[in-house]
Amino acid sequence: MRDVAVIGFGMTQFGELWNKSIKDIFVEAALNAIENAGVDHIDSMYVGAMSSGLFVGQEHLAAVMADYLGMAPVPATRVESACASGGMSFRQAYLDVASGNSDIVLAGGVEKMNDGADVTAALATAADQEYEVYNGITFPGLYAMIANAHMNEYKTTREQLAAVAVKNHQNGFNNPNAQFRSKITVDTVLNSTLVADPLHLLDCSPVTDGGAAVILCPLDMAKKLTDTPVKIISSSQASDTISLYERESFTTLRSVTKAAEKAYKQANLQPADIDLAEVHDCFTISEIVVSEDLGFFDKGCGGSAVEEGKTAIEGGEIPINTSGGLKSKGHPVGATGIAQVIEIYEQLTGQAGKRQVKDAHIGLAQNMGGSGASCTINILEAL
Amino acid sequence: MRDVAVIGFGMTQFGELWNKSIKDIFVEAALNAIENAGVDHIDSMYVGAMSSGLFVGQEHLAAVMADYLGMAPVPATRVESACASGGMSFRQAYLDVASGNSDIVLAGGVEKMNDGADVTAALATAADQEYEVYNGITFPGLYAMIANAHMNEYKTTREQLAAVAVKNHQNGFNNPNAQFRSKITVDTVLNSTLVADPLHLLDCSPVTDGGAAVILCPLDMAKKLTDTPVKIISSSQASDTISLYERESFTTLRSVTKAAEKAYKQANLQPADIDLAEVHDCFTISEIVVSEDLGFFDKGCGGSAVEEGKTAIEGGEIPINTSGGLKSKGHPVGATGIAQVIEIYEQLTGQAGKRQVKDAHIGLAQNMGGSGASCTINILEAL
Repeated sequence: MRDVAVIGFGMTQFGELWNKSIKDIFVEAALNAIENAGVDHIDSMYVGAMSSGLFVGQEHLAAVMADYLGMAPVPATRVESACASGGMSFRQAYLDVASGNSDIVLAGGVEKMNDGADVTAALATAADQEYEVYNGITFPGLYAMIANAHMNEYKTTREQLAAVAVKNHQNGFNNPNAQFRSKITVDTVLNSTLVADPLHLLDCSPVTDGGAAVILCPLDMAKKLTDTPVKIISSSQASDTISLYERESFTTLRSVTKAAEKAYKQANLQPADIDLAEVHDCFTISEIVVSEDLGFFDKGCGGSAVEEGKTAIEGGEIPINTSGGLKSKGHPVGATGIAQVIEIYEQLTGQAGKRQVKDAHIGLAQNMGGSGASCTINILEAL
Repeated sequence: MRDVAVIGFGMTQFGELWNKSIKDIFVEAALNAIENAGVDHIDSMYVGAMSSGLFVGQEHLAAVMADYLGMAPVPATRVESACASGGMSFRQAYLDVASGNSDIVLAGGVEKMNDGADVTAALATAADQEYEVYNGITFPGLYAMIANAHMNEYKTTREQLAAVAVKNHQNGFNNPNAQFRSKITVDTVLNSTLVADPLHLLDCSPVTDGGAAVILCPLDMAKKLTDTPVKIISSSQASDTISLYERESFTTLRSVTKAAEKAYKQANLQPADIDLAEVHDCFTISEIVVSEDLGFFDKGCGGSAVEEGKTAIEGGEIPINTSGGLKSKGHPVGATGIAQVIEIYEQLTGQAGKRQVKDAHIGLAQNMGGSGASCTINILEAL
């Protein structure tokens, strides 16, 4: 397999983009990425999107986007894995370049969620329709069960859950593309509307429109095109049971542990070697569980870690979600996995402004779908 | 890139499978493929499906299928490109193996269309929502415009369109998995209900439930696992404008000509070297246009070619849609591209029974989405 690098990125503002269609959003992000990478063509493209069918009534999405981007007849492929669609788009683009099949590949993701669709019902199609959704549960309820189990087993507190939201809003305050640039306190979170006990409104990521794209190419080519190539030193993916009830444990996510095991092995690294990480904080509890499953903290210690500032940009051992995460930056589900990679890229190339992590050389992006039935992990290194 | 081979296949009966869920259908096809290939595990899997969200309310489909197949935690990725979803699933699996990332990969496709959804509206999401569908057109109308243009430019006749359906029903009569195993005549087609002038009901492929899967592995490994490995000698993909109105011509499909150019180049072959082909006959006119765009016949001669028997199994120059095609075998949209590869595999390994083409060594499968905004071409060779 060829070594592969990221050489450029583009994204839109994340938020409620009522005046932009899904086409507008994707094309803006993709054109920004192409311009940022300084390339004059692409050989193929991937589009991650969870449910453009249910959200905006448009399937065949990659062909639509290749057309509107002016890139037809390039091969254009949509990949879907619920909220991990962006991460999978990135990984398929990586394989396309690594195989030698394509040189310059655009990996993008998009979701237009604010367009009149029943968003909660559409998102629920990421769970098992037959055994979960038809019985009435949606994602806040599923993650509430995970949170309750974690609180029960490890004495994780509501204040610790809230600390995730507080930190991520603090980080997102300094991200111009973030949906919510407002600092909040633990009290704000605890006093926000209860959604599914113990999760309150501010424990939940929002409904977001947005697009994101990066350009990949062989590392050899990247060294000629840019002074700051960022190498993809591992790319892994794993699955798990679609339903929570089938799992041995609610407090660990097997797709994350399995993907992490492969990712660290491929990169020949330990968790302690990672300088910063973007993880999938669709709910505050998920950041805590994932930070443990990635090996950054012992199982059960993720809650105290965030409370003690171990995941903060300033003075943290391992800054997590410096972008603001899904919580503050927003969560246009198909775009999220790409936006995570963009934050790592910006950090590793020293472009993160007030969010900049000092001496950031190696970063990890973890993206997952549903209640963790799919997960991708990509580790990047500045050269 | 490593050489890649197909070593096994499985599919379900195609038809109205009211007593089977989308999970049942995919798992049956996938287990058949795994058993047929004689492997005891898979390293990753791909699932092609157009719109499981709109048809059955289930996204996150690859994770669902990995779970129900008992294969979690393997990486599982859904790809979507409307009716070309199966072909794209095959191509991503090919790249996964060719890259060296995975050894044994399952490429599957599935669609459950008979489940209460508004099928015509769901299929229409493969066209441009903004400029085509909102103005009232659906696919029979789009292909009717292509047919009218072809009839106008090349004197193609309604009888020639009907001859495609007659041939494909003749072939499907001998395919135990086909939805419609009934022989028809040109008169039957011409006298069937008018759908969109000049296309009658029997010019259209049906609404179908079905699943299909194949197993890919490196060619070196394939030679140890089976006496009849089939090598993938090229795999290509192209896109085109999503809307018909944007195109210079209605009578040629640029995604097909571009993908064909690449496919023949990679395989170092000419159209005349192909012994048989499965092409995307979603409507009778599309088989005629595609048979020209693949270079089997001069532009404008596809209609007379089928009428003169040049695409028949018995005595044809280039037998097309020996499986019965989408027209008779059925068109579960996400499964179609895989089912095409299966027919080629069965033919090249001498397993096609009464449909067997004599001396079949090289076969081509062409799958496309929408009105041709995406196309994959895979060429296989018996070793």
